[in-house]
Amino acid sequence: MRVSIIGSGNVATHIAKALKNVNVQVLNIWSYNVKNAKVLANKVDADAVAEISRISIDDSDIVLIAVKDDAIANISLQLKDYKGIVAHTSGAVAMDSLVSHKNYGVFYPLQTFSKQKELDFSNVPLCLEANNETNLNQLKTLASLISKSVYEVSSEQRKILHLAAVFACNFPNYLYGIAQQLLARNQLDFDIIKPLITETANKIQTALPMEVQTGPAVRNDEQTLKKHEGMLQKHPEWLNIYQLLSNQIKNNRSY
Amino acid sequence: MRVSIIGSGNVATHIAKALKNVNVQVLNIWSYNVKNAKVLANKVDADAVAEISRISIDDSDIVLIAVKDDAIANISLQLKDYKGIVAHTSGAVAMDSLVSHKNYGVFYPLQTFSKQKELDFSNVPLCLEANNETNLNQLKTLASLISKSVYEVSSEQRKILHLAAVFACNFPNYLYGIAQQLLARNQLDFDIIKPLITETANKIQTALPMEVQTGPAVRNDEQTLKKHEGMLQKHPEWLNIYQLLSNQIKNNRSY
Repeated sequence: MRVSIIGSGNVATHIAKALKNVNVQVLNIWSYNVKNAKVLANKVDADAVAEISRISIDDSDIVLIAVKDDAIANISLQLKDYKGIVAHTSGAVAMDSLVSHKNYGVFYPLQTFSKQKELDFSNVPLCLEANNETNLNQLKTLASLISKSVYEVSSEQRKILHLAAVFACNFPNYLYGIAQQLLARNQLDFDIIKPLITETANKIQTALPMEVQTGPAVRNDEQTLKKHEGMLQKHPEWLNIYQLLSNQIKNNRSY
Repeated sequence: MRVSIIGSGNVATHIAKALKNVNVQVLNIWSYNVKNAKVLANKVDADAVAEISRISIDDSDIVLIAVKDDAIANISLQLKDYKGIVAHTSGAVAMDSLVSHKNYGVFYPLQTFSKQKELDFSNVPLCLEANNETNLNQLKTLASLISKSVYEVSSEQRKILHLAAVFACNFPNYLYGIAQQLLARNQLDFDIIKPLITETANKIQTALPMEVQTGPAVRNDEQTLKKHEGMLQKHPEWLNIYQLLSNQIKNNRSY
């Protein structure tokens, strides 16, 4: 199986490297950013092509579109002569956006990627969808080469996943940021709280979050809640978050 | 050095086990719950004493009070004849609550403990405070035996730590719970999102949270934000959280 890739960002980079690691040939890479395309192509022994039309007529079996959501439709148009499977990697874009192709699907890695940070791709859940069984099987074959966690997920379910990821990743990260700033403003090292963050994420690997909820709100510890609110008077934004989340936790104590 | 412990809950249990693991003798354990005291005492080869007065006159160098915050003052009174160092393990109670003793301090482990889940205590940050240098050094000696992360933290700073822990642990866990419920209601396995939760917590071990913020809000991706809000119409509580946090992330994009 041979793969070409559109894009040179975080997702494109991590997938391309994962493919190279299992000796799947990455044939061509095209990106709006020619320089980044070359950097990535060098890393995975692929060709950085100057014209996207070169990918339209290349010999790859699958082309992965790993670009910003709002650029997918335009890229799809430019690939109209491509004969293999066209799959995008977005969590938020419906598969139908590729309907003009004969063979199409979705190859969505549910993970947060940073270019500078390596990660073990074999643990990245890959959420797949395709316009027919044959194409789905081909995407599954490719996915199984690079990940232990391969899921078939409909466009409707994928929307839910994408929304859930905001609650599970983007929002917790913002809250980590508030904690970090609270500590920094009081001459405390962010390191001191990192083991707690790690353990909180570890706990829910084997338990439901609602079963391991801790803190003053779930204990209905009004005295501590009042103290904390007092300490946040100078940070009305953080106070809003504190009150909204504490109230919901209190109200859901029984679950 | 010999230690006695008041309490038999999560904190008492994890500290007692950690002490036994490094061959520090746990002499006596007393708890409101006699049965739990016996269970814990058996685990660490200590004596479960029926009367707290027995601890007042025992030969331990340090007694750790690991009970609920609002019970600390009362326990302290009952230990009035104790000659060693009296230290509580609370994040939220000021050291002054023990001022009636000659030797006193705080021995606060900044971690979320579950009885059923083992953890490597050597990574648990221990935040220490004492009424004089001699007692502080003795607490440091004990702490260093069981943890690599020992910090001297004032009562004022400890209040901040306790508040930051709500943002770094209790609130993220509640958000994990929302993600889990969103998935369950759409026939999606919670497992699919667990690697994302792990990686989000891993990322901030080496980067500031604000530097690795991802998601539609920080991209100012209005289309996705609107879609997500539409999907949350049936869950007004979760919609409130979504809007409050997204707005703050948008406003703080520049940091």
